[in-house]
Amino acid sequence: MTDTTPTDAEAACFEAGIKFGSLYHQFAGTPVSPESAPSIARAMEEAIENQPHCVDVTVTPDTDRLAAAIAEGSASYTELTGEFMQVALTIEYEGVRVVAEMELVDGYPLMQPVSVTERE
Amino acid sequence: MTDTTPTDAEAACFEAGIKFGSLYHQFAGTPVSPESAPSIARAMEEAIENQPHCVDVTVTPDTDRLAAAIAEGSASYTELTGEFMQVALTIEYEGVRVVAEMELVDGYPLMQPVSVTERE
Amino acid sequence: MTDTTPTDAEAACFEAGIKFGSLYHQFAGTPVSPESAPSIARAMEEAIENQPHCVDVTVTPDTDRLAAAIAEGSASYTELTGEFMQVALTIEYEGVRVVAEMELVDGYPLMQPVSVTERE
Amino acid sequence: MTDTTPTDAEAACFEAGIKFGSLYHQFAGTPVSPESAPSIARAMEEAIENQPHCVDVTVTPDTDRLAAAIAEGSASYTELTGEFMQVALTIEYEGVRVVAEMELVDGYPLMQPVSVTERE
Repeated sequence: MTDTTPTDAEAACFEAGIKFGSLYHQFAGTPVSPESAPSIARAMEEAIENQPHCVDVTVTPDTDRLAAAIAEGSASYTELTGEFMQVALTIEYEGVRVVAEMELVDGYPLMQPVSVTERE
Repeated sequence: MTDTTPTDAEAACFEAGIKFGSLYHQFAGTPVSPESAPSIARAMEEAIENQPHCVDVTVTPDTDRLAAAIAEGSASYTELTGEFMQVALTIEYEGVRVVAEMELVDGYPLMQPVSVTERE
Repeated sequence: MTDTTPTDAEAACFEAGIKFGSLYHQFAGTPVSPESAPSIARAMEEAIENQPHCVDVTVTPDTDRLAAAIAEGSASYTELTGEFMQVALTIEYEGVRVVAEMELVDGYPLMQPVSVTERE
Repeated sequence: MTDTTPTDAEAACFEAGIKFGSLYHQFAGTPVSPESAPSIARAMEEAIENQPHCVDVTVTPDTDRLAAAIAEGSASYTELTGEFMQVALTIEYEGVRVVAEMELVDGYPLMQPVSVTERE
């Protein structure tokens, strides 16, 4: 019979996923411009760093893409989506460190775990 | 027969309401602590100031209430709701200036227009 | 000296605006497909009808636009934004009835009050 | 040297976490009452089932807790938080099935992976 109890590394990856889903869906839709992008990026970092096991979050807005999207439309701002930012975060859970990232792949903001390291 | 077309002052109040609903429901639920409250407050101000006809937004976090709520629970943060902030905003629309506020009244965050001034 | 106290009609329009801002920013970013659009539309109606002074909300998803947006991308769903729905709502506040709508105008989801009627 | 590349099971757990964070932070703050709880629960299920690798989501509102919370306050509704629902979801990713749940533990909505099964 197979043991299906999650390992600490699996639970750590689950925690990393929670942080990404939280960050994305809490803030997607926020009115954003190149000028206001730094403050929302900073708020996202500090908000998610409050969550359990989250030791670092870095949100890097892509102000060039923001400016281009705004230039195409009739408004002076747009709504925040994954195409306008890169995110990296680090989780530590029961001695396991997970680094995960969100980057644009074929125009779709792909979230994925990058490394899983168990402390010796 | 009665004309039911909204006046400029009524449309300006509608705009003020949009900004309050946006601000509240975009950010309610954000993980927040006394330490991270200033960055989310700043991001809320700058995000909503992007919206049309919105000339000023001031979000004042109530860090004492935040600290008290966190002290009651088992986590080191809580979720942002209207009880943890005061908000004032100013709209200008077609020569009408509306000031509106959100304050706690009987434990419920009440949003209301405070003044409607038509420029001479 | 001018009285700047908001009228009941102005306060009613403010309430209508709150509902639109709430509806939009609570649900923008939700993963949506033509198949799931009816359930989110229904939930939006019932959620906002809970709010004070709100007597009716109608959310009509534009499943053709949804299908077209999905066909353009690499995923089987998209994120809800104002371009994928029409909304109409009715507020009653202190004897004033306000009807407001959100419709696409030049590709931008425009929210506006449509009529303001004071009960005799 | 240690290989830190995530396993399929770890990536599957990351995916499960994303869905929980998405579900929670997309919908937290929604105005909810015992009457409207079924429609928001249904919308949450269908919205998150749109996301990649998500084969099933079950959201069970706790209408007794909702009614009790509303009875304590001055409004006829409250805002959705994790204390008002149980959630179970199933992810399938590269032959790995992950079941994860959210339940109240000491008043805090705890999300955790329950089982990780690799298809033979």
